[in-house]
Amino acid sequence: MMNRSLVYVVGLGPGGAQYLTAQAQTALQAADVLCGYTVYIDLVRPLYPDKEVYATGMTREIDRCRWALETAKSGKIVALVCSGDAGVYGMASPLLELAEHCPEVEVEIVPGLTAALSGAAVLGAPLAHDFCVISLSDRLTPWAVIEKRLACAAAGDFCLALYNPSSKGRADYLQKAVRILRDNGKDPDTACGLVRCIGRDGQTARLLTLAELEDTAVDMFTTVFVGNAATQILQDRMVTPRGYRGV
Amino acid sequence: MMNRSLVYVVGLGPGGAQYLTAQAQTALQAADVLCGYTVYIDLVRPLYPDKEVYATGMTREIDRCRWALETAKSGKIVALVCSGDAGVYGMASPLLELAEHCPEVEVEIVPGLTAALSGAAVLGAPLAHDFCVISLSDRLTPWAVIEKRLACAAAGDFCLALYNPSSKGRADYLQKAVRILRDNGKDPDTACGLVRCIGRDGQTARLLTLAELEDTAVDMFTTVFVGNAATQILQDRMVTPRGYRGV
Repeated sequence: MMNRSLVYVVGLGPGGAQYLTAQAQTALQAADVLCGYTVYIDLVRPLYPDKEVYATGMTREIDRCRWALETAKSGKIVALVCSGDAGVYGMASPLLELAEHCPEVEVEIVPGLTAALSGAAVLGAPLAHDFCVISLSDRLTPWAVIEKRLACAAAGDFCLALYNPSSKGRADYLQKAVRILRDNGKDPDTACGLVRCIGRDGQTARLLTLAELEDTAVDMFTTVFVGNAATQILQDRMVTPRGYRGV
Repeated sequence: MMNRSLVYVVGLGPGGAQYLTAQAQTALQAADVLCGYTVYIDLVRPLYPDKEVYATGMTREIDRCRWALETAKSGKIVALVCSGDAGVYGMASPLLELAEHCPEVEVEIVPGLTAALSGAAVLGAPLAHDFCVISLSDRLTPWAVIEKRLACAAAGDFCLALYNPSSKGRADYLQKAVRILRDNGKDPDTACGLVRCIGRDGQTARLLTLAELEDTAVDMFTTVFVGNAATQILQDRMVTPRGYRGV
């Protein structure tokens, strides 16, 4: 019998074992080898200490996808791991693009808790109405596209989760983003929240206004939440109403 | 010693046990009583057959929140369950609004896989770039607000996940939504996908163009995905590129 050629693309959630779904645990257990960015492999390796691993550094995403597909072709089951969800700025997309040339390899996407959800739970319910997820990283996306999306999100009074709000060389991107939101209709008093190191040791959270956010430095481990016009702070929680009467 | 007054608001994901996170399992196990919409209680009751349950019908959300808070005050730990995520159109928001008047009750939000993530994994990677989640239900939101958000999402070339695309009395809302997307810049050839009964018996998926979506009837068990200008269909998967070169 032929071996099955199979790559699981597994969303780990924020990292700790408690955020894994049962489906993700099953896929990791079934895999012969775990493949991913070094930091994410380090999160999951303690749970599966006997697995073979293939870990490479940041910006090596395409290499990891190619390695995963070639290794699957050789008959090993590969779990390509991502933090958060497999699809949201994760590896499912490049893996499926490359898998077009490997029709013999089966690909199964295993979803996970993206930071918009896990971070929102820390703050309360900031994304309880229509929302946008936007990455401020211009490594793969022209800044003009990001600007346009920020403007449209503000014009539509969406709640927002902003990913990759900062990194080396992009210290002022969040400030620029906040200005675009304000220029396109977000009130400076809009309720906002920051969650750093979601679900990991040293997790911190902070509530602030959009005007305060403009003057706040964040790092790459932070996810930024911006409310809509109705979002409130209630007992130190950020809560976007769904619109029920009589609440 | 005083009993602890505690409500967990637990996102179950699509429903099956495999989509529960370990954190959600722990919360459900710790609870004295499970409270929720009858359909969701039925999903989770088989896993915890010995738990007390309080299940009520659709549109009884506020009653359930009040019951959860009152029951927690009496010293029982309550798990208020939601399908998908606790925060995304879930019960975290109304519960936290009402909990403002019950400062003695501790509230812990337990995130779960919302349909945008679990449905995306079925289709491939449709939400791999900036995306919006919009509900087409006008039960709690004026239709004019929904229209405006659809227009802004299209103008920003966001990927979209559309929730509640149809129900009794709203058979033509998806059609209206598609027209708004097209009028605001979405190409009729934009790749789209439908997933019905995500993660449940009888799950089905379908890929189609935005023009075809306009002429397609869906029901309330369906989540609709609309790509951005770069979204492709590759080997029967809906894939939004992240923008890597050399893929």
